[in-house]
Amino acid sequence: MTKAVYLCRLTKNVVEEKIDHRNLPMPTVSHRSHTVPLSPFRKLIPLADAAKVRGRKVYHLNIGQPDILTPPLALKKFREVPLEILAYSPAEGNLSYRQALVDYYLRYDIDLVTENIIVTTGGSEAILFFMLACLDPGDEIIVPEPFYANYNGFAHIADIRVIPITCEIEDGFSLPSMAAFAAKITPRTKAIFITNPNNPTGCSYSPAELYALTELVVQHDLFLCADEVYREFCYDGNLFLSALSLPGLAEHAVVIDSVSKRYSACGARVGALVTRNTQVTDAISRYAKLRLSPPGLGQILSEFMLEEDTAYLSGVKDAYEKRRDLVYQRLQAMPGVTSYLPGGAFYCFARFPIHSAEDFCRWLLEEFSYQGATVMLSPGQGFYATPGLGVDEVRIAYVLNEQDLGAAMDCLEVALATYPGVKRAAAETVSR
Amino acid sequence: MTKAVYLCRLTKNVVEEKIDHRNLPMPTVSHRSHTVPLSPFRKLIPLADAAKVRGRKVYHLNIGQPDILTPPLALKKFREVPLEILAYSPAEGNLSYRQALVDYYLRYDIDLVTENIIVTTGGSEAILFFMLACLDPGDEIIVPEPFYANYNGFAHIADIRVIPITCEIEDGFSLPSMAAFAAKITPRTKAIFITNPNNPTGCSYSPAELYALTELVVQHDLFLCADEVYREFCYDGNLFLSALSLPGLAEHAVVIDSVSKRYSACGARVGALVTRNTQVTDAISRYAKLRLSPPGLGQILSEFMLEEDTAYLSGVKDAYEKRRDLVYQRLQAMPGVTSYLPGGAFYCFARFPIHSAEDFCRWLLEEFSYQGATVMLSPGQGFYATPGLGVDEVRIAYVLNEQDLGAAMDCLEVALATYPGVKRAAAETVSR
Repeated sequence: MTKAVYLCRLTKNVVEEKIDHRNLPMPTVSHRSHTVPLSPFRKLIPLADAAKVRGRKVYHLNIGQPDILTPPLALKKFREVPLEILAYSPAEGNLSYRQALVDYYLRYDIDLVTENIIVTTGGSEAILFFMLACLDPGDEIIVPEPFYANYNGFAHIADIRVIPITCEIEDGFSLPSMAAFAAKITPRTKAIFITNPNNPTGCSYSPAELYALTELVVQHDLFLCADEVYREFCYDGNLFLSALSLPGLAEHAVVIDSVSKRYSACGARVGALVTRNTQVTDAISRYAKLRLSPPGLGQILSEFMLEEDTAYLSGVKDAYEKRRDLVYQRLQAMPGVTSYLPGGAFYCFARFPIHSAEDFCRWLLEEFSYQGATVMLSPGQGFYATPGLGVDEVRIAYVLNEQDLGAAMDCLEVALATYPGVKRAAAETVSR
Repeated sequence: MTKAVYLCRLTKNVVEEKIDHRNLPMPTVSHRSHTVPLSPFRKLIPLADAAKVRGRKVYHLNIGQPDILTPPLALKKFREVPLEILAYSPAEGNLSYRQALVDYYLRYDIDLVTENIIVTTGGSEAILFFMLACLDPGDEIIVPEPFYANYNGFAHIADIRVIPITCEIEDGFSLPSMAAFAAKITPRTKAIFITNPNNPTGCSYSPAELYALTELVVQHDLFLCADEVYREFCYDGNLFLSALSLPGLAEHAVVIDSVSKRYSACGARVGALVTRNTQVTDAISRYAKLRLSPPGLGQILSEFMLEEDTAYLSGVKDAYEKRRDLVYQRLQAMPGVTSYLPGGAFYCFARFPIHSAEDFCRWLLEEFSYQGATVMLSPGQGFYATPGLGVDEVRIAYVLNEQDLGAAMDCLEVALATYPGVKRAAAETVSR
């Protein structure tokens, strides 16, 4: 039978008759897709939706989506761009935007050239690109835990291992000793991966901690990959120290960046990977070319956001610092609650006098209300890779204005005072 | 030594002194990053840049970046959106945009619900997500070659194998026989992956070919993944038949889509993955959540582009059809050139009477000019996975207006008449 005859014989009806679905298996999805790690609060989303249907106001302190305005002046200028063809940008990003980023990093005394910067689709893509470009399957990164849970997901795609090193709430989640880090290093270790300031802990690492890491990564020939998307949000007058400013790390330091948090522009999906290591930029560039270009509109907006952002950023930082103070003071006043003064970002962790933060978060959404409202938090366990850690902890994202944040903390205070699962004795002991 | 003592002891200067870079190796990039497949014309880009520096006009027929305007009315509406916070969209895309896409597919008699559609960062991300969600490492997809070269790159990230099945220029690159497909199926085959209409060949598959594939994928329990981003560009009055319209493929058909080509909005980075298989949408959704959201601005613009696009799309299709006719007629008139009338997209392949299309493309940029101009083409070899194929072929993207396209074809005609590497005897034989 010739091809032409074969093709002509077939018609839609013939095909339909031939297919007997009862006896045919269906194609199945991949095994790996079943084990993609999910967000720590994903299971709670339907409960929050149901609470809203029941008329509850839900204060969302579970997600890093701020209520801060995206810079209005930048949006105005963006709208005035006489765009006619929304073409691909270069795979590495628009040259003018990369040049603007060079100027931006100079504010932090970080001296770069445009070739050191590859614009990515959010910080997310920069994380994945780093893992693909610098690690082979089975290689390891050491990450202080608790950490941003989606690192697990990108590691899953890249088929690399995340080796946690545990930080303690009693230390405000500062870095463990370098001896503890060194003990985690194996022949497969390729990088130490930090988030500074930290999501989910809000910890802002000190120069001493970062210099110690510097020595460690050089000694062991590792990359130091630093996710610095909360760079602008360092409080109490502390200066931010970038991995790109650390001495002797020109070949070792790789920085993940993003406009999402800086400008409250999470939907722009514009990030960057920054390093002076040309081997790394070459490798990243190969991955970047596959997906042709980062978002074009987001890049144009981001370039405007970089202009004249001083007053904006200083206002936003003040707003977050006030929110942080509010959350810290309220948590300190709650019996049995362990917390600390976070130095940066817009998150803090808290330990509650309860057995299971997951149960508590579910109860908040399913059963609790105070003045018609409740609060959604992220259970802490999902931010740890070590089993059993964080079960009585939560992450609080102080992304709401002070009035809403105050009302949310009222809810939390009343909830902890009335939750049936609270460890009363422990609470009394600690609060004494 | 306690941690505190250790940390305090360190200062920047101490660290700098301690590090002796002469004796330390540098961290190295991954092995896999060295083997990321590159674009077929990447090596030519510096040559094109150099030609421009020498004052040459370079007609770019090497890349699918059209000179068609992005819908001006949609851009106008987009500019008027009173956006205050550019927040994350849902990971699966804005519900209103997914609903608009449901309406869009109804134009093709494709009946969907919003849950069948996951908005992605360009078609590129949809391809990668399909590979991750439906294939495990080492699994195989069968792809008619020549094919879009970046499929190799996404397969490289997902660690899956691309099994080529060769199409012939003499057949206008229509699909090989189903027996030839069946011969490529192994226990690791998970999908047949087609691009319809095709990039790089412009072939638009007939209903008969698609029904034959339908039978094959059902018999062998495979996914049929169809990249249909050129759906609107089917010429000669032919109707487009989507994989989503094929009988009995509800669980098998997965479609890759994008606004890039449809609306000449390549920089929007808005695509979609569409399937009625809920196992697949669940799996894709897990990957989508990791990167939080597709581009927000691009989604808003895309929703406007979908409105009132009938006149726009019909005008664009007419423009491309005229360009196709021009390229086809000009190629037919060139001695020794083998080509065909492509039925869709905005590409065609051509075989030249030369030994190496790579050498020819390089010569065009380095040595040739006609009336101060030259033309950049994509060497064909990079679109084949089978070694040795396509060495005397090129891809021509007819993305320029008729005047520029005519001038580019003038260049090509003169170049083939004067290129020292042309096979004269063969050319004369064929043109007789």
